[in-house]
Amino acid sequence: MTGLDGLLAHLPSWSTEPEVLARAALDRSGAVPDGLPLAVVHATSVDDVVRTVSYAAEHGVPVVPRGAGSGVSAGALAGTGTIVLDLSRLDRIVEIRPDDGIAVVEPGVITADLDRAAAEHGLRYAPDPASAAFSTIGGNIATNAGGLRCVKYGVTRDSVLALDVVTGDGRLLRTGRTTLKGVTGYDLTSLLVGSEGTLGVVVGATVKLLPLPRSTATATAYFPDARTAVEAVTGLRRAGLRPSTIEFLDHATLVAIDDAQGGDLSTRGRAFLLVQTDGYGAEEEMAAVVEALKATATLVETSGDAAAADRLLATRRQALPSIERLGRVLIEDIVVPTTRLADAVAAIEAIVRDTGVRIFTFAHAGDGNLHPIVLVEEDGPPVGDAVDALFALALDLGGTLTGEHGVGLLKRDWLAAELGETGLDLQRRIKAVFDPAGVLNPGKAITER
Amino acid sequence: MTGLDGLLAHLPSWSTEPEVLARAALDRSGAVPDGLPLAVVHATSVDDVVRTVSYAAEHGVPVVPRGAGSGVSAGALAGTGTIVLDLSRLDRIVEIRPDDGIAVVEPGVITADLDRAAAEHGLRYAPDPASAAFSTIGGNIATNAGGLRCVKYGVTRDSVLALDVVTGDGRLLRTGRTTLKGVTGYDLTSLLVGSEGTLGVVVGATVKLLPLPRSTATATAYFPDARTAVEAVTGLRRAGLRPSTIEFLDHATLVAIDDAQGGDLSTRGRAFLLVQTDGYGAEEEMAAVVEALKATATLVETSGDAAAADRLLATRRQALPSIERLGRVLIEDIVVPTTRLADAVAAIEAIVRDTGVRIFTFAHAGDGNLHPIVLVEEDGPPVGDAVDALFALALDLGGTLTGEHGVGLLKRDWLAAELGETGLDLQRRIKAVFDPAGVLNPGKAITER
Ligand SMILES: Cc1cc2nc3c(=O)[nH]c(=O)nc-3n(C[C@H](O)[C@H](O)[C@H](O)COP(=O)(O)OP(=O)(O)OC[C@H]3O[C@@H](n4cnc5c(N)ncnc54)[C@H](O)[C@@H]3O)c2cc1C
Ligand SMILES: Cc1cc2nc3c(=O)[nH]c(=O)nc-3n(C[C@H](O)[C@H](O)[C@H](O)COP(=O)(O)OP(=O)(O)OC[C@H]3O[C@@H](n4cnc5c(N)ncnc54)[C@H](O)[C@@H]3O)c2cc1C
Repeated sequence: MTGLDGLLAHLPSWSTEPEVLARAALDRSGAVPDGLPLAVVHATSVDDVVRTVSYAAEHGVPVVPRGAGSGVSAGALAGTGTIVLDLSRLDRIVEIRPDDGIAVVEPGVITADLDRAAAEHGLRYAPDPASAAFSTIGGNIATNAGGLRCVKYGVTRDSVLALDVVTGDGRLLRTGRTTLKGVTGYDLTSLLVGSEGTLGVVVGATVKLLPLPRSTATATAYFPDARTAVEAVTGLRRAGLRPSTIEFLDHATLVAIDDAQGGDLSTRGRAFLLVQTDGYGAEEEMAAVVEALKATATLVETSGDAAAADRLLATRRQALPSIERLGRVLIEDIVVPTTRLADAVAAIEAIVRDTGVRIFTFAHAGDGNLHPIVLVEEDGPPVGDAVDALFALALDLGGTLTGEHGVGLLKRDWLAAELGETGLDLQRRIKAVFDPAGVLNPGKAITER
Repeated sequence: MTGLDGLLAHLPSWSTEPEVLARAALDRSGAVPDGLPLAVVHATSVDDVVRTVSYAAEHGVPVVPRGAGSGVSAGALAGTGTIVLDLSRLDRIVEIRPDDGIAVVEPGVITADLDRAAAEHGLRYAPDPASAAFSTIGGNIATNAGGLRCVKYGVTRDSVLALDVVTGDGRLLRTGRTTLKGVTGYDLTSLLVGSEGTLGVVVGATVKLLPLPRSTATATAYFPDARTAVEAVTGLRRAGLRPSTIEFLDHATLVAIDDAQGGDLSTRGRAFLLVQTDGYGAEEEMAAVVEALKATATLVETSGDAAAADRLLATRRQALPSIERLGRVLIEDIVVPTTRLADAVAAIEAIVRDTGVRIFTFAHAGDGNLHPIVLVEEDGPPVGDAVDALFALALDLGGTLTGEHGVGLLKRDWLAAELGETGLDLQRRIKAVFDPAGVLNPGKAITER
């Protein structure tokens, strides 16, 4: 067997089949591990998790927590000698308390399933990553996932009230509380959110649910160029507006969607914004949005009904799949202050010119969060310099390397440049507090000394 | 002198005058320190802070960071042998970037001054503690202050993007970022917010500013009893409403305000709610609020204009001062799930009956955050049991010991009951990471082993 007999004999569900291991070792980054993990453990209880992590800590075996494997920064990549700890079968929605606006869930619950269950009570789970149909809440928490409406409602961290985690020494820790407010002790909940499985394995979460908005209004706008489109985001802010969604697509992306869907979006303008408002007064606020957009847009359309709005959102969701049809891609995820978006899109256009690499850019523009999608073409130019240039421009413009996908394995080389040596040093020491044996997803999220 | 000559000789502004020390040693909790601090250092630069903390770490001298001293949990209480590090003179608003919706401030900026400066750009700083007129942003950050509108806009943590702090070993650390999103590294910013000066001294902050709401609508409602009033909070949630403020006053508090102000609030009902809605659609949402309140309220009034609304808010702000006229008070700060508010007010009424202690309760009811104000009467019954009963009921009802005032010195005995041994152990280790010499506000916020 694998040398894990002392562990596996005590667990109900696991596999050491090479094909199973090979699949469980990958995420959606396209990165390739150095070999096969030792085993994949399918946790069926918190106890399975405690047992696995305790064994790993005692024997110095790395553990890679895994939700749906939909991450794009190689955070769930599992190499030689590791145990994949798959949480996807812990998928019960334990409780929804509509009158308190909270839900208690296991980590393997699919994001969209939680949102659907909340909707039955007139509520919603605000964070809506484009991967909601297949990502897990545990993975969302571990990456602090964002989504389309987080410009108004915050990222995953803003919706997490309490966590149950198994720390690297196999202890069960409960953080936070089920109340909407509270300051007893340091905020370990926020510390764990976004920690990419390196501080603890999330085995349970209490999350906030918000009332479904009374109404939602949607507009799309086309602009003569990318700069004008992203400058309109600042225009919305100046007008005192608070849309729930502001999404940007560049011309390359519009063309890719048209090629995939047979549409004509790319003929309507050279850049695109999708804007939604919601809540009481959504229509009145949308009227103000439209007025602000019309200052520079060449075409503004509002969608009267929910079905038309859904089609527009679906278009946005088609962006990545449409680009992925063209070949292997690197999904980048930089953030800049929204007032520097225009400089960012100009710099990306320059990178494309200088390197010959094809880049498609869409963005959660309201947050300044750009997803430049870098096409890796068989016979095209090497992409390394283009990717480095993207990271450099993010930091140059006062931004960050990753808005929602995480550092994983792929952005580690740039960490020190963003965090500074003192910050990195403190982060490493915090890692050692939670995971003294260094077995929780080692090498991910932060670099070792 | 004081034995601090090696430090004070290098600092521009400090005092060892007994009267100055005596004043700098107190906060608004009413707690009394065991003697005088060694010195108060008035920081005039980040360098002064680095120098003071470095000296303290080297010589093992406790440092008590201090903003305005308006805290009510003895967090800024400074006893024998300590250095008070007063940040109130670092009070520059360094920069407001309206188009990015951020402000960069020094820690000594008064909360209301920042909000006023933001208003000049059509923006606001969302967290509005009732102490905004005199508390500092640094103190707000260190306690994770809440306020009236945090039920919709979040607490201080939700508005802090980046921090400059001096850690316990005298290192300058920058956390977070100036973008609205980002997941590079662990969230040290959230960890530092609410840490009550025990992990680092805040010397700078980048905070979020939101657009001023387009309009605001206000209603007050009177109810036959406290239970009915707090149950109306659940009614608002069931109706899918998202008010920006939901404040509760009990009958004892209404009487105290009337006695202080010469009004007749207490004749209108036995319990009171103040509700505000804001943003686009505020009036339409308020109409729905009024309809929901009318189901159980005996009287509902809406205030047509801003001046009337301001008067209603002023009434709410008079609650604490009106009670304080009656004698020394202990300001408690428990939180329960909003659906347990009715049980909480009933339990508080029982505590009053059982102990004979006078308690006035007002609440940020939308968050479940109750402020039972315990009157300490010269010839009245001892209050210790009543206070313990309040903490016990908070935990019994699935709540927390403190919603926004912090643990300070006063709630330390209850910490383990809420956090559990594993949680407390991890928190102590985190403290040791940031403050290896244990000189930053020792004994506050978390208990030593
Ligand atoms: C088409 C597509 C669209 C996407 N859109 C978005 C988007 O809009 N916003 C966004 O933020 N992301 C997006 N992503 C990225 C990805 O879906 C998210 O990062 C998601 O949160 C990952 O969830 P997962 O369950 O697949 O986690 P995995 O990929 O399995 O794991 C991700 C990381 O979390 C850790 N982890 C997983 N579960 C746990 C647990 N229970 N405890 C501790 N650590 C754990 C893993 O070790 C790994 O480091 C997208 C991905 C794709 C393929
Ligand atoms: C009338 C009244 C009303 C109040 N209303 C509210 C309310 O609505 N909501 C609310 O949350 N609180 C309220 N408070 C409590 C208090 O005002 C808040 O806790 C406020 O945030 C304290 O700010 P400060 O500048 O006075 O801090 P201080 O009292 O000076 O210090 C508070 C704590 O923060 C630490 N600290 C201060 N500055 C720094 C710094 N720069 N770096 C590191 N640590 C620091 C101190 O060591 C101490 O532990 C109220 C108090 C009063 C008297």
